[in-house]
Amino acid sequence: MIDLTSTIAAISTPPGTGGIAVVRLSGAQALPIADQVFTSPSGKRLSEQKAGTVHLGSVTHNGETIDEALASVFRAPASYTGEDTVEISCHGSTYIQQKIVQALIDRGAQLAQPGEFTMRAFLNGKVDLAQAEAVGDLIASGTRAMHRVAMQQLRGGYSGEIKALREKLLHFASMLELELDFADEDVELANRNELSALLKDILHATAKLTDSFAVGNAIKKGVPVVIAGSPNAGKSTLLNALLNEERALVSSEAGTTRDAIEDCVTLGGVLFRFIDTAGIRSGAGHVEQLGIDRSYQKLEQAQIVLVALDATLNATELQSSLLALLQRIDGKKPAIALLNKADLLGSSELAEKENILQPLCRTLTISAKARTGMAALEERLVHMAALPDNLDLGIVSNLRHYEALTSARQALTRALDGLSCKLGEELIAFEIREAAQHLGSITGAIADTDILNNIFKNFCIGK
Amino acid sequence: MIDLTSTIAAISTPPGTGGIAVVRLSGAQALPIADQVFTSPSGKRLSEQKAGTVHLGSVTHNGETIDEALASVFRAPASYTGEDTVEISCHGSTYIQQKIVQALIDRGAQLAQPGEFTMRAFLNGKVDLAQAEAVGDLIASGTRAMHRVAMQQLRGGYSGEIKALREKLLHFASMLELELDFADEDVELANRNELSALLKDILHATAKLTDSFAVGNAIKKGVPVVIAGSPNAGKSTLLNALLNEERALVSSEAGTTRDAIEDCVTLGGVLFRFIDTAGIRSGAGHVEQLGIDRSYQKLEQAQIVLVALDATLNATELQSSLLALLQRIDGKKPAIALLNKADLLGSSELAEKENILQPLCRTLTISAKARTGMAALEERLVHMAALPDNLDLGIVSNLRHYEALTSARQALTRALDGLSCKLGEELIAFEIREAAQHLGSITGAIADTDILNNIFKNFCIGK
Repeated sequence: MIDLTSTIAAISTPPGTGGIAVVRLSGAQALPIADQVFTSPSGKRLSEQKAGTVHLGSVTHNGETIDEALASVFRAPASYTGEDTVEISCHGSTYIQQKIVQALIDRGAQLAQPGEFTMRAFLNGKVDLAQAEAVGDLIASGTRAMHRVAMQQLRGGYSGEIKALREKLLHFASMLELELDFADEDVELANRNELSALLKDILHATAKLTDSFAVGNAIKKGVPVVIAGSPNAGKSTLLNALLNEERALVSSEAGTTRDAIEDCVTLGGVLFRFIDTAGIRSGAGHVEQLGIDRSYQKLEQAQIVLVALDATLNATELQSSLLALLQRIDGKKPAIALLNKADLLGSSELAEKENILQPLCRTLTISAKARTGMAALEERLVHMAALPDNLDLGIVSNLRHYEALTSARQALTRALDGLSCKLGEELIAFEIREAAQHLGSITGAIADTDILNNIFKNFCIGK
Repeated sequence: MIDLTSTIAAISTPPGTGGIAVVRLSGAQALPIADQVFTSPSGKRLSEQKAGTVHLGSVTHNGETIDEALASVFRAPASYTGEDTVEISCHGSTYIQQKIVQALIDRGAQLAQPGEFTMRAFLNGKVDLAQAEAVGDLIASGTRAMHRVAMQQLRGGYSGEIKALREKLLHFASMLELELDFADEDVELANRNELSALLKDILHATAKLTDSFAVGNAIKKGVPVVIAGSPNAGKSTLLNALLNEERALVSSEAGTTRDAIEDCVTLGGVLFRFIDTAGIRSGAGHVEQLGIDRSYQKLEQAQIVLVALDATLNATELQSSLLALLQRIDGKKPAIALLNKADLLGSSELAEKENILQPLCRTLTISAKARTGMAALEERLVHMAALPDNLDLGIVSNLRHYEALTSARQALTRALDGLSCKLGEELIAFEIREAAQHLGSITGAIADTDILNNIFKNFCIGK
């Protein structure tokens, strides 16, 4: 069980030294504890001050002045956590920050767990669970799109829609269960046509949300771009060129298979996840073929495919190389053909080859090595990754929500099937309740300690 | 000239991602600028709110919501800078922090220079220059002593004393200069005995302050401990043991000479600067001797000397090694003899050798390699570095203040000499004014733009 009776304290600003830092204290004892360490020149205690006021004073502990600081007073329920809260804005020395937290702990506060302030905001009904999760996403947001999706969710997002859908489901489930009590009398409290129509509406709404996950996930984890092509086409050089051009390397990690390398970079404000295929590096004939096969597998993950081609090959070779890849994609993914190694050819020969490829697929001429044509490629990528203009429609970027919505859809489909097969009320009611439960887990209408701990453990301390 | 008419903005919390971050906005236009980006649900503008109040609202720019944030309102002169100030406490995403600063700049604010908020606090008369410098020291403080010295100076420290001394000097200088106007009448407006007594008092007071710099500098830069001894005594191992034991390496830099290595570490809350002597490493006889000579030179810097001795040497060799070093120190520096390599000897032999050395110098038996006896050594070092209990006496830790005080002392000495030689009033008045000017530069009664820029350039942005 989560303890809400304690008063918690933590440094809430980023770790390290800065001009100022903020130590946050929240809980029933926040004001009495703050009174013991914070003294204002007027002699008036913080607990006597009005909510929403800021006061200059000294933080002292065991007779020693730790800092001259500002203290803001908030009172339940009008605070972030919904509890009495004091925020101490001190000089940003790590020594001072630690000493103030220590002083508060010595006076009875507990060191806050990661995300505990936000968890309390949820438990005290200030935000729903999806909003609480949005706080974490908002803090982690590094691009405009990530920020917009998180901000939209923080302001309510699709929570309202999900709550409404869930209530309708619960209402119908109750009606069906009530029918069971009157089983002998053969009453039909829940109109089957209405129920069927409702389930279809809800299925449609949840499908729209789960479909948005492709966009939401691309926003959060980066738009997946697979770099395909034969090994001597300069794929690694291309990857490096894409990453170095902007010098904004976000993360660099070995892929899930030992043969793929994934790297994230922000281009034109959009986060891209470039997936290069390796194995190819070893070069020998058989291994090369294996590498190309794996390349094809990786294509499944792609939102955009870059086909790297070695411009020094002859026109027939280029055409067949490109066609082989386009056949694999089967028109399902947007692709760009990259006529690479442009630095090794004359401009007329390049233009000729480009003209041959252009009818098959949009082709750009580049030299990854000489870094020519990269700006046009990046511009094209940013254009192709363009997000829906209206992000105000709910976009699901949270894997937990996506999984809950998917489970809800499955239960709804089973309920609909049950209706058409005229299954018993209890079985249909069961599926509807299951769908409602999955929807409820998104907003936290249904949440156990494990789920909460799992969600908040990745938050920073102090939030 | 420094421009105080602009309104400045900057992120004031440590760089990076955290639960919350604070963007500070200060200047005549702070409230009108904040009104353009901050909207409260009540519709009431920040410029209409009372000073010392905090408000929840939205930060928007160009129609896009950047964040849900808190804004605190302060009004001139009751703010840190003495100007109208708004502090926006936002979610701690770097994206949000940058967007808010950008929004404020787009609305007319200027990006603050390092330390500009504190420089304004000085220029607006909220603090004197020594207090402004103490803000920087306070933020950089990593130990209790550094923190105490900075906090004491922030609260006024020796500023009051220096102001009072300076006023007395200026008064006497005026009297002397007035005498010049009545030169024909041979009046003596400034009593020479009083003046002489005053100058002696002031010399005494400034000498006390400059003397405190040894302590103040040790607090700020670390207590200098020189590790001396012959090359095979295990000095480098000892240095590593001292540094690794605590795993709290503060900085590691090559010394001013190519042959010395300095490393700082905090032991028992005290910052130590261990100075090892190198050159010694090359090992050959002649080079070894050069190294030992340089060791002797380094002793000048020491507040404490550690004499590393190779316990495997015979008693006579140990005695002469130790005595040679003690003679160099000449009783001026506290020293500890370290009977090192204790792991290579039996306990009775060790005890015997320790008994021989103990009458010459406090001796500890250690093995730097096996890390035995290190705790006792550290405890001893912390004890020997003990700071004066009463840090409330002014302690000068600022090199600029020390230099100004030293220059003031020189001018005062020349004035006193002039008095005893019965030099002309104008010359004595000149020296007294020079002393007053040096004292005035400490508190900023006299300060030009270059001095200010030089002081504040090392501050963080946002302070």
